[in-house]
Amino acid sequence: MVCRIIVLDKGPYVSFANCALPYYMSGEISQRSSLIVESPDHLKERFNIDVRPNTEVVKINPGRHQVTAVHDGQSETLDYDRLILSPGSKAIVPDIVGLKEADNVFTLRSIPDVDKIMAELGQGLKTAAVIGAGSVGVEAVENLTKRGLKTTLVEAGDHILPFMDNEMAAIVSRETTEHGVALKLNTKVSKIADHRLELDDGSTLQADIIIVAAGVKPDTKLVSEAGIKTGKHGGILVDGRYQTSADDVYAVGDAILIRQQLTGELTSIPLASPANRQGRQVADVIMGENRRNQGGIGTAIVRSFDIAAAATGLNTEQLKQAGIHYQAVHITGQSHAAYYPGGTPLSLKLMFDPKSGRLYGAQAVGKASADKRIDVLSVAIKHRMTVFDLPEFELSYAPPFGSAKDPVNMIGYAAENLVEGLSENIQFDEVDDAVKAGAYLVDVRNPEELDRDGRLPNAVNIPLDDLRNRLNDLPKDRQIIVSCRSGQRSYIAERILKNDGFKVKNLDGAFLIYSAAYPQRIQHTGGH
Amino acid sequence: MVCRIIVLDKGPYVSFANCALPYYMSGEISQRSSLIVESPDHLKERFNIDVRPNTEVVKINPGRHQVTAVHDGQSETLDYDRLILSPGSKAIVPDIVGLKEADNVFTLRSIPDVDKIMAELGQGLKTAAVIGAGSVGVEAVENLTKRGLKTTLVEAGDHILPFMDNEMAAIVSRETTEHGVALKLNTKVSKIADHRLELDDGSTLQADIIIVAAGVKPDTKLVSEAGIKTGKHGGILVDGRYQTSADDVYAVGDAILIRQQLTGELTSIPLASPANRQGRQVADVIMGENRRNQGGIGTAIVRSFDIAAAATGLNTEQLKQAGIHYQAVHITGQSHAAYYPGGTPLSLKLMFDPKSGRLYGAQAVGKASADKRIDVLSVAIKHRMTVFDLPEFELSYAPPFGSAKDPVNMIGYAAENLVEGLSENIQFDEVDDAVKAGAYLVDVRNPEELDRDGRLPNAVNIPLDDLRNRLNDLPKDRQIIVSCRSGQRSYIAERILKNDGFKVKNLDGAFLIYSAAYPQRIQHTGGH
Repeated sequence: MVCRIIVLDKGPYVSFANCALPYYMSGEISQRSSLIVESPDHLKERFNIDVRPNTEVVKINPGRHQVTAVHDGQSETLDYDRLILSPGSKAIVPDIVGLKEADNVFTLRSIPDVDKIMAELGQGLKTAAVIGAGSVGVEAVENLTKRGLKTTLVEAGDHILPFMDNEMAAIVSRETTEHGVALKLNTKVSKIADHRLELDDGSTLQADIIIVAAGVKPDTKLVSEAGIKTGKHGGILVDGRYQTSADDVYAVGDAILIRQQLTGELTSIPLASPANRQGRQVADVIMGENRRNQGGIGTAIVRSFDIAAAATGLNTEQLKQAGIHYQAVHITGQSHAAYYPGGTPLSLKLMFDPKSGRLYGAQAVGKASADKRIDVLSVAIKHRMTVFDLPEFELSYAPPFGSAKDPVNMIGYAAENLVEGLSENIQFDEVDDAVKAGAYLVDVRNPEELDRDGRLPNAVNIPLDDLRNRLNDLPKDRQIIVSCRSGQRSYIAERILKNDGFKVKNLDGAFLIYSAAYPQRIQHTGGH
Repeated sequence: MVCRIIVLDKGPYVSFANCALPYYMSGEISQRSSLIVESPDHLKERFNIDVRPNTEVVKINPGRHQVTAVHDGQSETLDYDRLILSPGSKAIVPDIVGLKEADNVFTLRSIPDVDKIMAELGQGLKTAAVIGAGSVGVEAVENLTKRGLKTTLVEAGDHILPFMDNEMAAIVSRETTEHGVALKLNTKVSKIADHRLELDDGSTLQADIIIVAAGVKPDTKLVSEAGIKTGKHGGILVDGRYQTSADDVYAVGDAILIRQQLTGELTSIPLASPANRQGRQVADVIMGENRRNQGGIGTAIVRSFDIAAAATGLNTEQLKQAGIHYQAVHITGQSHAAYYPGGTPLSLKLMFDPKSGRLYGAQAVGKASADKRIDVLSVAIKHRMTVFDLPEFELSYAPPFGSAKDPVNMIGYAAENLVEGLSENIQFDEVDDAVKAGAYLVDVRNPEELDRDGRLPNAVNIPLDDLRNRLNDLPKDRQIIVSCRSGQRSYIAERILKNDGFKVKNLDGAFLIYSAAYPQRIQHTGGH
């Protein structure tokens, strides 16, 4: 079967590299031509596809199998046998007084957007504000900073990168502020006027340019008007073959709702990878191949300066919203074997069912290999594996690439210990209350580490290698909580103490996670 | 239960970083202390383990639950409740005239080995030979070269890195020789005398130092003498709980045979990662935890200069030996999105059942991210997935890390096309015979690429974007084989031609794989 294929797009470009736009601002991607992946002429030449840019569909008529489109002021109505809707998403513009009137506010979604921004940046601007700390906001901040602008990131929520949990995102926040970015969390912009932002904490902020990166929503007004069913946030409802409620009308991409494979609920995952997959699959479906829209678990990554943050599956908020009971475990390993130069810390978090060990979600933050570990864990989560599968993973090891005990294996062991009851943990956001309620907190790091890195509040210091000789110093009748730097030595301490009859919990993630989440609570009393 | 734990080791060091030794030769790992992971004193202090180095077990008596060990000339017999054997493997020393008498021949297995090599290298040597092109040999060659020695690698087989297939290893060979290494494949050393190697091709080779890296075998003479059952290559036979044929005697590490999960056969996987896992699991078994020796699929990686080669599951030779019918597919993608700077080519090979699509093995070669893709595929192979699972993988994508269509997704699509019959391929080592038998080979690259990179023998050049207009130039009655650079454009060519009724196969991996396997067959007739 040979099909005549027509692509209608209201914008001037087809197949441009949306995800590349932030990097063009700094010049890290230096050629504007790099942003454009395909051209209508080349798609015609190679695939014999009739691509029509600057052609806006203004009406869909499923009953008549027709769409009406406008190009250069001329309206044309086209017949179709099959229609694929891929309207994508549009930027959410927050309701801020003066935003629409301001001449220096931009979104960062398209090549015309970035052309306008680049023209503005060419004027020698000095200050920038970015509203919204999702992936695009965080990337925009990095690239504006690299371009030399003093940049402020304003976020209404309590942490950046909403796809990550608070304490993992906090590691990225630290990286961001260390690079000179001003970060305003729990803060809303109330007014924009004269290149100044008024914030709801009463402060004001000068910004020569303002980027709004407050997220996206399905761009489906036209679809709804055509009587095609939409759901949450206006996302198009499709079945397992990407068919909408209208006969012969299919939909893919940011605009559709898909099944979250872990919760079973309909959700929006507006990312490039699923969109690409759906595009291929819907063509297969139409051409009679046996393809199914299987939904997804969601995997995302973002870089902020030298650090990457990645997540797959459900995060804490999603687990709570879905009413799923879970347990979390954190470890901090190395990107590769410690004895080989150049390794960097990698913080990993895993969430799982405390009884069965079924995996729900994972997050990673580090300068290297966060992508690798999250990719491996995404396969495990998608395929309904448990914590008991992770130690068995045979991951590639040579000194430049990994460790004989890969962080993914190690977090599996740590989680296995929790499910089997060999270890119990307490989270960074629970420990202060536990200590107030009478728990006895023991930090088993060495004194030099306390001097160098800081002390946990209310902790007694007994270095791990002294512990066996100082068991009498500890109270048998109180809940003991042990901590170290990453949680590995404190696990050994926990086992030593439990074998001696103490009641012990391990501070999950230990100093590294606690200090990332609560930097202001760390006491620096050492010689430095 | 509290156990008294005694560790007996004949060597002077416990827990040293075996895999780090090659990198110490070049100074890439600069501190000798980095090679030593743990000390007996520290293991005593932290874990209360009685570690006895320089203590050689000379007899195992399972009947009496005793071992006899010699330390400093003193013999001692110790009782045990449970015995764990972890004798490891020993270097295979090939039977070469003069090798044992030579004063400049070394193995590279232990700290005493590397101490001897470093003393020798300190004498200002100029030339080196490495016998054996497995991982250790290839790493030794890199590090000797980086130290400034003119190095020759001599390998009896037809390609380096026997865990990889010929054509994938060939990409690494090219990298190795481009860094000045002389490579002698299909070559055996017949004699060593006066710092000269006589090779079986009649040539001779000067070498101030010779490293023998001809593989390892289980070091189990003592174990056999004790009547404990061994199998292939002398590997110790253990059950699903690591128990040997003797009561209360367990075994782990390089010296045991494990179940190859893909073939079901017993095999040896002498690598650090499985050894670590087994060590932990046997302790769990003895302490009553529910752990099983599940066997493995095997995953390995090695770096040669700037390039990495990684493999998981079965390679071609193993598939053939096991009598498993398989199909292969190659792609060459990019380590990350092409529009973001710094991406490098990544060649991927996948082997799978041509009917069901079940995955058997994967290999990757590239400057970046071979480890990541092989780790993901190792999980897929281990969990008995099929090619149809790969396109669904949700892998982390942002421009610095990957592509919206990750190479793992892409090779899944390519394999899916083969299983579903949308595409047929022919391998690099079959195409020349097919052309001789009358097939018509069409190279759809652009003429500039042919001039720059070279031509396939006997190929007609029709650039892909001209193909639709030149269908009449092609014979309908002959088998057509299409090729391009990586295999992606030729797939499009295949589809165009098939839709027009031609009989077509795609040269799998196209120019990149063919030219890696047969560099001497490429014709350079262009202007450069």
